[in-house]
This record gives sequence, C-alpha cells and structure tokens, in this order.
Amino acid sequence: MSVTKPFRPDWSEVPPADGTYRAIFKYGDPHRFKHPSDNWYAMLKAEFGMTDADFRRKQPEGREPVALDRPSQLSAGQVDALAAIVGTENISSDVFQRTRFAYGKTTEEMMELSRGTVREIADLVVHPRDKEDVRRIVAFCHDETIPVYVFSGGSSVNLGLRPARGGVTLVMSTHMNKILALNETNQTARVQPGMFGPAYEAALNQAPERFGTKRRFTGGHFPQSFEYSTVGGWVVTLGSGQASTYYGDAADLVISQEYVTPTGSIRTLDYPATATGPKVHDMLKGSEGTFGVLVEVTMKVFRHMPGNRRYFSFMFPSWEAAVAASRNISQGEFGRPAVYRISDPEETDRGLKLYGIPSLVDRFLVKRGFHPGQRCLCLGTVEGDGDYTRLVKRKIRQTARRHGAIYLGAYGSRKWEKTRFTEPFMREDLHDYGIVIDTLEASVTWDNLHALHQGVRAYIKSRPQTICMTHASHFYPQGTNLYFIFIGRFEHAEAYRAFQGGILDHIQKFGGSLSHHHGIGRMIAPWIEHHLGKEQMDVLRALKKHFDPRNIMNPGGQLGLDLDEPLKRKP
Amino acid sequence: MSVTKPFRPDWSEVPPADGTYRAIFKYGDPHRFKHPSDNWYAMLKAEFGMTDADFRRKQPEGREPVALDRPSQLSAGQVDALAAIVGTENISSDVFQRTRFAYGKTTEEMMELSRGTVREIADLVVHPRDKEDVRRIVAFCHDETIPVYVFSGGSSVNLGLRPARGGVTLVMSTHMNKILALNETNQTARVQPGMFGPAYEAALNQAPERFGTKRRFTGGHFPQSFEYSTVGGWVVTLGSGQASTYYGDAADLVISQEYVTPTGSIRTLDYPATATGPKVHDMLKGSEGTFGVLVEVTMKVFRHMPGNRRYFSFMFPSWEAAVAASRNISQGEFGRPAVYRISDPEETDRGLKLYGIPSLVDRFLVKRGFHPGQRCLCLGTVEGDGDYTRLVKRKIRQTARRHGAIYLGAYGSRKWEKTRFTEPFMREDLHDYGIVIDTLEASVTWDNLHALHQGVRAYIKSRPQTICMTHASHFYPQGTNLYFIFIGRFEHAEAYRAFQGGILDHIQKFGGSLSHHHGIGRMIAPWIEHHLGKEQMDVLRALKKHFDPRNIMNPGGQLGLDLDEPLKRKP
Repeated sequence: MSVTKPFRPDWSEVPPADGTYRAIFKYGDPHRFKHPSDNWYAMLKAEFGMTDADFRRKQPEGREPVALDRPSQLSAGQVDALAAIVGTENISSDVFQRTRFAYGKTTEEMMELSRGTVREIADLVVHPRDKEDVRRIVAFCHDETIPVYVFSGGSSVNLGLRPARGGVTLVMSTHMNKILALNETNQTARVQPGMFGPAYEAALNQAPERFGTKRRFTGGHFPQSFEYSTVGGWVVTLGSGQASTYYGDAADLVISQEYVTPTGSIRTLDYPATATGPKVHDMLKGSEGTFGVLVEVTMKVFRHMPGNRRYFSFMFPSWEAAVAASRNISQGEFGRPAVYRISDPEETDRGLKLYGIPSLVDRFLVKRGFHPGQRCLCLGTVEGDGDYTRLVKRKIRQTARRHGAIYLGAYGSRKWEKTRFTEPFMREDLHDYGIVIDTLEASVTWDNLHALHQGVRAYIKSRPQTICMTHASHFYPQGTNLYFIFIGRFEHAEAYRAFQGGILDHIQKFGGSLSHHHGIGRMIAPWIEHHLGKEQMDVLRALKKHFDPRNIMNPGGQLGLDLDEPLKRKP
Repeated sequence: MSVTKPFRPDWSEVPPADGTYRAIFKYGDPHRFKHPSDNWYAMLKAEFGMTDADFRRKQPEGREPVALDRPSQLSAGQVDALAAIVGTENISSDVFQRTRFAYGKTTEEMMELSRGTVREIADLVVHPRDKEDVRRIVAFCHDETIPVYVFSGGSSVNLGLRPARGGVTLVMSTHMNKILALNETNQTARVQPGMFGPAYEAALNQAPERFGTKRRFTGGHFPQSFEYSTVGGWVVTLGSGQASTYYGDAADLVISQEYVTPTGSIRTLDYPATATGPKVHDMLKGSEGTFGVLVEVTMKVFRHMPGNRRYFSFMFPSWEAAVAASRNISQGEFGRPAVYRISDPEETDRGLKLYGIPSLVDRFLVKRGFHPGQRCLCLGTVEGDGDYTRLVKRKIRQTARRHGAIYLGAYGSRKWEKTRFTEPFMREDLHDYGIVIDTLEASVTWDNLHALHQGVRAYIKSRPQTICMTHASHFYPQGTNLYFIFIGRFEHAEAYRAFQGGILDHIQKFGGSLSHHHGIGRMIAPWIEHHLGKEQMDVLRALKKHFDPRNIMNPGGQLGLDLDEPLKRKP
C-alpha cells in the first residue's frame, strides 16, 4: 500500500541573493531558516479557510535586486569630508547599502520591500571606527545641517531606523562592537554600543579566558532579538530581556553612558546611586538617537551560574487564576523568577497543539478540570545562587498550587528556551503566502490588566479569521506587560497598517502603555503625544532642543518629537 | 561611706520657648530629648582634652526670642492676592514664622541661630490646602516674579530650605499630608507630599482598618530623619532609607508624580515599566524644588511581614574583610538584606565603648583575633517572606564566615534598631558645650572604596582632636556608600564651614559622589558643577529654563543651577 506524501508548502530555503529586497527584510542570518511545522501549517489552513492550493503560489518574494534612482543629496565636498574622517573604506554611497541600512524588521517594511516599494533611504552610509570618528562626524553634520541616523543591530520593529530626511546613517556594529573593560570588582562591563548580544554574552561567560577574571559573568539580557540586536540598541530603545523579571530591563542595567550630541559629548558618572539632583543619566536612556549617538555604555553584569538554573511549568485552570497567582508571586517578597510567562487561553490552546501535547496528557488535564478555552500555561526559570533558586521555585510552586495550578515539570520550559530566539524566522515563510504574524505589547498595572486584555483582544478578534495569542512575560510588583501576537491574511501594507493602528488605538483606549519594551520609533510616534500628554512631550522637546538645536539627530518623526500636528493620532 | 555623685553636664531638658532661635534649630519634638550617655561624656572629655569644668558653662543656647526687623518685600496687594487663594488663616507674615520655615537642620544653621545670626527669610509663609491652591499660588508668583520655596518636613541638612531671595515659602505638611488612595492590587499608595514618615507608615501598617484592605503594608523607607521628614521630601531630594538595600532608594519607590511648575502642571503615568522614550518621570525626581512643587506622588508599597524580620550581627577581623564580605553578599544573587551596615575600626571601637560591650565578650573577641583598631562590626536585618529571610540570613552568615567573621547574634542589631532615629537628638547637647557632630556621605564603586575611605578619613583626622567614624549602610551590586561622622570642637560657623568644605573637596578628590542620599541643597551646590561636569549641568539648566523660565522656583543657589561663577568650587 503506497502512502501519499502529505503536501508541504515550498517554505523557502533559498538564501536571498545579495543586493535584493529580500536580503534587506529577511530576518537574521541569510542562510538560516526555521519553517512552520506541520502543526503550524494545519492551523493556518484551518484558521484561514485555506487549502493546499493556496500554498502553491507565493506572493511577491522580493528577490529582485534593489534598483533605485535616488541621487544622493550630499555634495561631493560633504562626502569627501566624511570620507576624510573615517576613510573611504568606511563610507558607502552604493544604493543597496543606503537602502539596507534604512530598514529594520518592521512588518510593514517587509510587506513593502517584498513588492519593491522603498521609502526614504540615507544619502551616505558611514561606519565609524571609534567615538572620535563619531564626534567628528556629528560635529561636521551639525555644521552642515546634515541629518544623522543611527543603525546598530537593525532589529527595530517600529520603523526606528528610517532615515526620513536622508543624510548620513552611522552603522555602529561594524567597528564599535567590543567590550573595552570588564571590572570584576564592580561587576561592570564598559561596552561599545554596536556589540551584538551573542558576542557580548559569550565574552562575559568566558571572562576568565578573555579578561583574566576569577568568575564568569552574564549580562542577564536576552530579548527575542538577542542574536541580532546590540547592547547600544537595548539601551537607547529601553529594551527588556526575557529574564527581565529577575535581572531588570535594559534601563536598569546601565550604570553610565557616553553620548556624542551636536552640542558636545556628555558622559555620566559611575556610581551605584546618587542624590545629586535629577539624573541626567536617566534622561538619556530611551532617546532613540534623537539626542545624540551612544558611543560607550557601562553595563552591570551578574555572576554566571547556569548550573543553578531551575525550570518550571504549570497549567492554571483559568486566565484569572494565572494572573492572580502571578501577582502574588511578584508581590510575595521571596525573590523572583528570571523568565516567567503566562499564556492566555488562546495562546495556551494553540501552543499545546503547535508544539505537541500527548493526548494522554491532554485527557488527564481535562479530567482534572483544565479545559481548553480556559486553561493557561505558565513557563519559567529561576536563576542565581543554588539555594536561592531552589527556594524561589518552591515558593512559586506553592503559590501556583494555591491558585489551582498543576505542576507540569521542567520540560515545557526547557523546550521553550531552546526555540526562544528562532520564532521570528517564520515570518517570511508566512508572508510568502500572504499571512502576517506580528506583535504589539503594552505594560499595565494589575488592576487594569483584564480590561486591557479583553479590550485589545476583542478588537483583534473582531477581524474575521484573525488569530490573537496573548501572554504576559515581564513581571513587576506593580504590574506586568501584555504581549499580543496576531496572525492574519493581509494583501497590502496599507490594510495592515490600518489594522495595526486600530490595535494601538485600543491599547491606548484601554489604558495600556504604548510600549513596554519595543520603543516608539516612527511607527508608534503618532500616538505618543496623546499618550504621554503635551506636558511630557514639551519636556522631551526642550531636551531635544538643548542637545540638537538644528534637529539633525534622527529627524522626521522619531519619538514623535517633530511630528506635524495633522500626523498626531487623536483618540 | 558616702559616694560622691559623679558630675554630669546639665544637658538641657528645657523645651525651647516658642518664638526663640532654639525653637527653630532644636531637632525634633521640642519636648523630646536624648542626652549623651556617661560613656559618651567620658569619650568627649578624653578625646578633646576637656574636663568637667568645660561642661559647667554653656555656649550661647539661642533661647532668646527671634527679634528681626525684616520688612516683607511683598506688596500689600500681593499678600492680599495670596490670602485670597488660601484664606487668611493659611498665610503668615509673622517674623518668627518667616524665620522658622526658612531653616532646616543643617549644622551651620544651628551654629548661627544659636548666636542670633539669621540669614535670608521668606517674606510670607503660605500653607496650601490642596494642589489647586498650589497651582494658583505658583501661577500668581510666576506672573509677579515672586520666588517660591518649598518646606515640608524641614529636616534638610544641606541648606535646602533657605529662601535665598525671600518671596513665598509654601509649607506642604500643614494640610497636604494624607494618603489619597491605597491600591491593594497594584500595591501603590497615592500620597500628598507633606505626609510625615510615621503617619505614612502607620496608615500602611493599619491598612485593613484604615482602607479596608486584606493585607498590611509598609513603605519600606526609613531614613534616620524618618520621624521628621515627609514622603515628598524623600522624593525631591532622592533620600534613602536604612533598609534601602532591600527596598530601594526613594527614587526606586516612586511610580508616578504630579508637579505644579510655573509653566503648568505635569503628571506622569502609572506603569510598572515603559519604553516610550526618555522618562520624564525620572527627570523630575531629585529636583529639590527647582522645577516645581511636588503635589502628589504614587509610591510603591510592600507587604508588611514584621514577624519574619531576622536580625544578625558579626565582627570582622578587619575593614578589608568586612568590605570584601559585603561585596560578595551584594553580588551573591541570593536575595538581599534590608538593613546592612559595616562600621570601620574607629566607629567599631567607639561604638563598642559607647554602647557597652561586656569585658568578657571583649576579651573573648581579642583572644579570637578580633583586635581593637582593626575589627569591624556588621549589623543588619532581613525582611520579606519567612522562608526567604531564613535563607538570606543563612547565606549572609556563610559569606561572612568565609571572610573570617564571627557571628554575634541578633542583640546588636536589635539594639541599633531601637535607637536608630534618636541619635540626632544629641546634637544640641553637644553644641551647648561647643562640640559639633555632623556627617557627610558619598557613594562609591567597590574598586574605589578604600581610596575614598582613606583619603577623606586622613583629611578629617588631620585636624587635631577630631573623631571620625565611618560606616557603609546602603549596598548595591556595584558599590555602596560611605557615611562619615565627624565630631570636633568648633567655635564659630565660619571655621566649621571651612573644615566641612575641605571634606567635600576630599570626597571629590578621591572619587566619591557628592551625595548618596542627602541631596545637594545650597551647601553642596558650589561643588556640583565640577562634579557632574558642565555638560550635565547644562542639561539641568535647560530643564530648569523649560519649567521655570523666570527662575522663581527655589532660586539662589539650590542644586547649583543659578550659582555665580566665583561661587563655584574649583578642585
């Protein structure tokens, strides 16, 4: 008896050719792929009423070479002057390079680029070798009123890299990507901003071999974009790692910073705490390239004790129970988990199907009262001293049990950990067949969590055939974040943008913050003035004017600082 | 056989009469006293070569009524307008009131007031009833260019309250001293700025009775000035409590704030964390009244579990061992103590003598190798969940033992806790006999701790007959603070100021921060520009100009924002 091989879409294994649109928007290493599993494929078909036939023909893949006629707006003299600073080998006026460094990993960028639509690009790409180069470039651009944009890892998901007014894009990760000093006594690392996550973490883990220290260290910062984001990017966009519940957000990890601004360099001091007036150090974090260029940052590091890591997973009978338990864990004063995540019922059900739950386990869960459509999965780890991790895991188990949870062992959490950086690789596979997977996230206090979850979810689900999976993944005593993952079929960027705007409207309407850890960029910028209020925006503008009186640093909408009135989104 | 009663100085038990200089500078409740013990008295005589005769005649006590001819610079119309806002019962142009609210608890203030020297005073004292009053007062003063100073608890030790240019002093603690809302779910308290420590803490401890909550809470903030300082003061001066190693500094405890500034009111949002650009919320903390008036603050609160508190004390063989152990405790990733203090050898030796160590214990310690002049005392507590406090205490014991410490039980720590708020009451007793006790403190990274300790201590000890006791009392993974207590005989404020300035010079020279938790005020202001650098000061001035373009908010030197060039201290 012959078995027909089941149909599988032709998920692309072809690395994008250099110089093509796809080379710009493909996530991560061009040679690296992670395709939707058969379970994923089955879900997509079922959810979107699609058949194998729909997966036989691809949407535009963007495999054409970038072909643009975009003359540089810089004069030959200006280009020469910049080349004289960094060397001709460190500038590029090639149109592909100018395009490549104008883009991050925002969904609408992928949607447009795959169809050959290119927005603003830089006039010149410059790779500074050190902070002195940056100082001279910024001074020159200030004198000449040339816009300066900053590209480091390129993982922005909010149009944070778009050179809206052309000019120069500085690529920080080419040369400025090293640890300059590791101070074992203070547990700090002085780092150049363009150092990628894996290189940074590896250097800290290998500190005895690399820096002659007694101990090994960890940076404690592991965003999903870890492999393709940089230390500087984490700081200037206020990122959060997946273990932030224990280690803190990027803003908490910075002990001092040095920026080059149009009005000069500014360096903050290395103290563990001070009471010397308002902290300029804190004002610089999150400035997303609008005040100046981060050229050096001193980060807190932690003792690396991976052998002590403990894993746990639970099933809660309901979202309400999962949230209540998580609040009690966050407020329990017994220490904190490192990774800690709770998935809402839709994410839990889909996750169990997608990642495989043995039917025996499923029947057991149902029998014990953990029903699909209600039950919620919780995953996590504890890090630190061995006695501490044992205690914290035990307290978490006790608290979860009091809220009706059943302990599911370490397996789920270990499995999650293995794939935690690779999920974004699926986005091009889905997009090749007209399906968009994207996320938006918000922080929220405990008392408003359910209203925000329901309000935003209701909007997303009001669109026919749209998946909405939600989890909370960064916990504080006063609240958490909600991370909305939505999947739907979208023909064009315009329709997608409208839908996404509606989600942001509903995050705002239901009292979430506009961003917990994705930053603002140009994408969320229209909402920010109403969100923070004019009074706060005026403070930011006063700082902007101080650092950058000619508005050369990341002009054209970033953070909503220089957005024209009609572009501001009204509630 | 008759025994001669030993001589004791006539430590004053006479409450200062209302309206006198002493009523202004006496620390705390006028009817409350804490005198130097016989051990203290013996130490003072021995150290300063004094005899009982020196303690038979007091220095000027400042018991005369404040008598000043200081006509108000406000017009009758201006006074009427302000009275119309708050009601005539809430203004005072009485010269004693105008003087009283012009002073904090700075040593040089006591030295001058006791001799009848009065510096600048307010033209009018105003007691706003609510934030709307503040809004109207500030708007009026902005229109009329009348300086506005803010007085809340009055415990400033750095000339932070001096109305250098007259005008209006707002007293926040008269009416604006309540918890407006306690949110049990979020564990936050919305508080008016003028609420004193004990009232705030009592309300949180009694939350079930006062707010109908299920749980009891604590604010976690216990500075030595706890009884006479206010929630708002903690925030605007960046204070730290004695349990800050666990609960965090005041800046860490604030979730949102509302200020009234000359350019309008500004309120930050209640989120546990955000990535929506540079945090204006953080820029407002520590502004010491120079940007505007804090009118409402939402504080994080913690579950109150005093039954779980554990106490510990150790003796270390040396300061080096105490510091090394404390660093390993701070970096050990096993949780943190709440109170944690290490005393240097001089503080340890004097403390043991002053607070009494049985000679048997002393002999035992010496026999075990803990010698006077080397040994260092460590005291502390752990707070939180009961299993957590047991673990953390155990880990601290293990770490301390590895560094040669001997465990001394809970007694020392419990004893310290009982008197931890009352030490400042001795200062008038000493001053009545020409002896000054004062403190300065700095934060420092671990790698610079010994240099700072030695450098500052050497300067203090270079003055003949001067006691210098040092401890570290606020611990972070990256460093700690050094708290220098110095005691000496000073005839006049001028000589004292010169000595104190020398200490600040040496803190600066040896790389300490100018303030870990005392703020800057006018006293430390001359040093700040060189310390932070012109670049940081220019940022603060840009914010100042934004919030307060006419410089009416706390003008005349606060934070060094508007200090004339010749007044800036050069290194």
